[in-house]
Amino acid sequence: MRSAAILFLVPGAAHAAGTGVVGENLLWLALILLSARLFAPLAQRLGFPAVLGELLLGVLLGNLSLVGLHYFDGVAKDPIIAFIAELGVIVLLLQIGLETRLADLVRVGGRAAAVATIGIAAPFALGTLLAGPLLLPGLSQNAYLFLGATLAATSVGITGRVFRDLGRLDSREARIVLGAAVIDDVLGLVILAVVSGLVQSGKVSPGGAAWIVVEAGLFLGGSIWIGRLIAPHSSRWLARLDAGPSMLFAQVLATGLFLAWLAHVIGLAPIIGAFAAGLLFEPVFLRHFETPRIVQEAAPLLPAGERGKNLRALMEKHARHQHESMIEPIGYFFVPVFFVLTGMQVDLKTLAEPTLVAIALGITLAAVAGKLAAGFAAGRGVSPWVVGWGMVPRGEVGLIFAVAGRQLGVLDEALFSVIVIMVILTTLLTPPILTQLLKRRAQ
Amino acid sequence: MRSAAILFLVPGAAHAAGTGVVGENLLWLALILLSARLFAPLAQRLGFPAVLGELLLGVLLGNLSLVGLHYFDGVAKDPIIAFIAELGVIVLLLQIGLETRLADLVRVGGRAAAVATIGIAAPFALGTLLAGPLLLPGLSQNAYLFLGATLAATSVGITGRVFRDLGRLDSREARIVLGAAVIDDVLGLVILAVVSGLVQSGKVSPGGAAWIVVEAGLFLGGSIWIGRLIAPHSSRWLARLDAGPSMLFAQVLATGLFLAWLAHVIGLAPIIGAFAAGLLFEPVFLRHFETPRIVQEAAPLLPAGERGKNLRALMEKHARHQHESMIEPIGYFFVPVFFVLTGMQVDLKTLAEPTLVAIALGITLAAVAGKLAAGFAAGRGVSPWVVGWGMVPRGEVGLIFAVAGRQLGVLDEALFSVIVIMVILTTLLTPPILTQLLKRRAQ
Repeated sequence: MRSAAILFLVPGAAHAAGTGVVGENLLWLALILLSARLFAPLAQRLGFPAVLGELLLGVLLGNLSLVGLHYFDGVAKDPIIAFIAELGVIVLLLQIGLETRLADLVRVGGRAAAVATIGIAAPFALGTLLAGPLLLPGLSQNAYLFLGATLAATSVGITGRVFRDLGRLDSREARIVLGAAVIDDVLGLVILAVVSGLVQSGKVSPGGAAWIVVEAGLFLGGSIWIGRLIAPHSSRWLARLDAGPSMLFAQVLATGLFLAWLAHVIGLAPIIGAFAAGLLFEPVFLRHFETPRIVQEAAPLLPAGERGKNLRALMEKHARHQHESMIEPIGYFFVPVFFVLTGMQVDLKTLAEPTLVAIALGITLAAVAGKLAAGFAAGRGVSPWVVGWGMVPRGEVGLIFAVAGRQLGVLDEALFSVIVIMVILTTLLTPPILTQLLKRRAQ
Repeated sequence: MRSAAILFLVPGAAHAAGTGVVGENLLWLALILLSARLFAPLAQRLGFPAVLGELLLGVLLGNLSLVGLHYFDGVAKDPIIAFIAELGVIVLLLQIGLETRLADLVRVGGRAAAVATIGIAAPFALGTLLAGPLLLPGLSQNAYLFLGATLAATSVGITGRVFRDLGRLDSREARIVLGAAVIDDVLGLVILAVVSGLVQSGKVSPGGAAWIVVEAGLFLGGSIWIGRLIAPHSSRWLARLDAGPSMLFAQVLATGLFLAWLAHVIGLAPIIGAFAAGLLFEPVFLRHFETPRIVQEAAPLLPAGERGKNLRALMEKHARHQHESMIEPIGYFFVPVFFVLTGMQVDLKTLAEPTLVAIALGITLAAVAGKLAAGFAAGRGVSPWVVGWGMVPRGEVGLIFAVAGRQLGVLDEALFSVIVIMVILTTLLTPPILTQLLKRRAQ
């Protein structure tokens, strides 16, 4: 029998083998892919958003070790599955970017900046000055600062997914939250840099903090501006070489991956780059590519004149969204992996200590209150509750901050657990609440 | 600035970070994705098949170190990129399976078995008894046996891709080659097991060899038979839960990944499992799922009666192939990674020694002659040349055998290089020759 061992002894041979670099990953991906599709509709039947189903599936798989099943313990730590999850959230933000018009985002720019600023300042102040000293007395000032920084974080993945699942990405609330989340990511970096600087050397570097803001601004503005200058021309060149769907697909996805990498390199979250890539493609830039095959084949069959008008309009709409339809299956594959893995980060053992849970509930209250306050900075004509709850989930960003704090020795195990519970609660509570708010508003 | 180091210090934190587990992979994937799409049409303009463009791009990237550029050295060895490549060839064989009707394959079963048997026996005999002792005198009998085993291998990825790119998967030649390649993979395992047994213990275990055949037969027959029993029911159950495209997609892809894993577990190539998964889904099994959105939206707009007949037929065809259209972008993303990485395995330094190249040319001749002989076992009404050349590429399977031989200490560096050159030549020569043969036949 062909020995698996042979395949792993020689570098490079494993992939050449075509016989499974870590074959187990194939099974894990199959299980995540299919069971996410079972949990998502089940959650929807119970009135919850699909993403909650995927998160809870993750919580379940990640905590099976509590009942002695250790099969999935390796999944959350596997670098290949982690990379697929990473691709998942990058693809999600690319999709959200493609479905968002830049002009709409710019129009709410001022409101988004206000929401982002309050959404950072209010939870930071609440955590550092009130909830921290009150609920966890006797800790160092640095610990309170880090707690505040964690509360200031925003994770746009969860909220974006809820808006997208409900087809509400084109609402003013969605645009404000998306814009604010992008600004938040930058401000969050500044806070983390400042707080880490304070903790490590006892002093803040104003130049360093300013540089992060400038760099992030240059990246965002520059990539979208340059991208929109290049995209019409690159599309024409690429379509001249091959006007088929694979080239169109490759241009959009490769741009998303490239800007995600670029964002990562300059220290921003890759998802910011992916979102920027989505924003820079307008359907009109992509008009040099062939229309989808069904549109081509239907063209000679369409009735002439007035009678075929609606069908022609439908075909045009389908052609205009060709690139989004092609990214869609990539999302079906990758996106659930991200949410299931996010759920797997939840360690239910942290919920076993009543005191910690009580403190965590208090911290969570501060976390929610701070972001809801930001919602009221969104101005007239939008629901402050939708915007506020849209900013609530801390998700993976909150976890990064907590991990950084533990690395620096500022957060002890107890405070770390409190923060993890806060992250869990804000992440799991938001999807159902936001869904209810949006459904009520739609009526 | 958010330190990348933080993200890699804590297990599990890296993915939770959402900030790039090995961010460099994002850039590599973007580069491979886009440059493969540049090379493929360039190759086609010069009259070569697209896959040759991707292979040559790989050869180029993999040998940039010869001119002092070492940036891509890490790509071929990166386990994440290797896994993506692995997914690529799995997705390709799933697609080929979906586009192949099982009944058509069964109909050519006898011919495929004849082609496979001759295609194993002839090159094995040529390599072990003639080309080996003649061109490389003085080596051990074991070395000749291993050389023969390498010549007996077949890699179906390259050939399947050429047939698919030219839209000729429905030809009788394609079916015979596909069927023979599946049988070949099993017989190849037997040969490798027998030869390895001979080398290691000096004796063959007939029971072990027979068990491989039985196990592989059970797997193939069992998975397709049980799969086809289950698929109509599972489709109905899954569609009742969620009849949307994401569920349809998840069912097909998860089955592909699962059977690929199962094949790997029992020692077969994962691609055999992916191919079996593709064979077990017939469009009729999937009728419980919703039709694509454009078909739904077009339905009320279609002209009644005779006038709308052609449009209705077009919509039905589109709906029937919905699952294939959704797997297509997954292929755009993953498949080129496999072929580029296969190209990167080619070490041009092996071509620097004239004696070795001369010997390798002789061995390549034997490799081609043996498989062409098999083409003549395909029987009447099909082109023996198309079938024969279809079996020629050794690709990654030939490399596995060579690597196994080196592991066992049977193949020295010189013979290993000779085999690698043979694998390169058979892999790179086949696409253009097969394309010419198929184009001439189509006239």
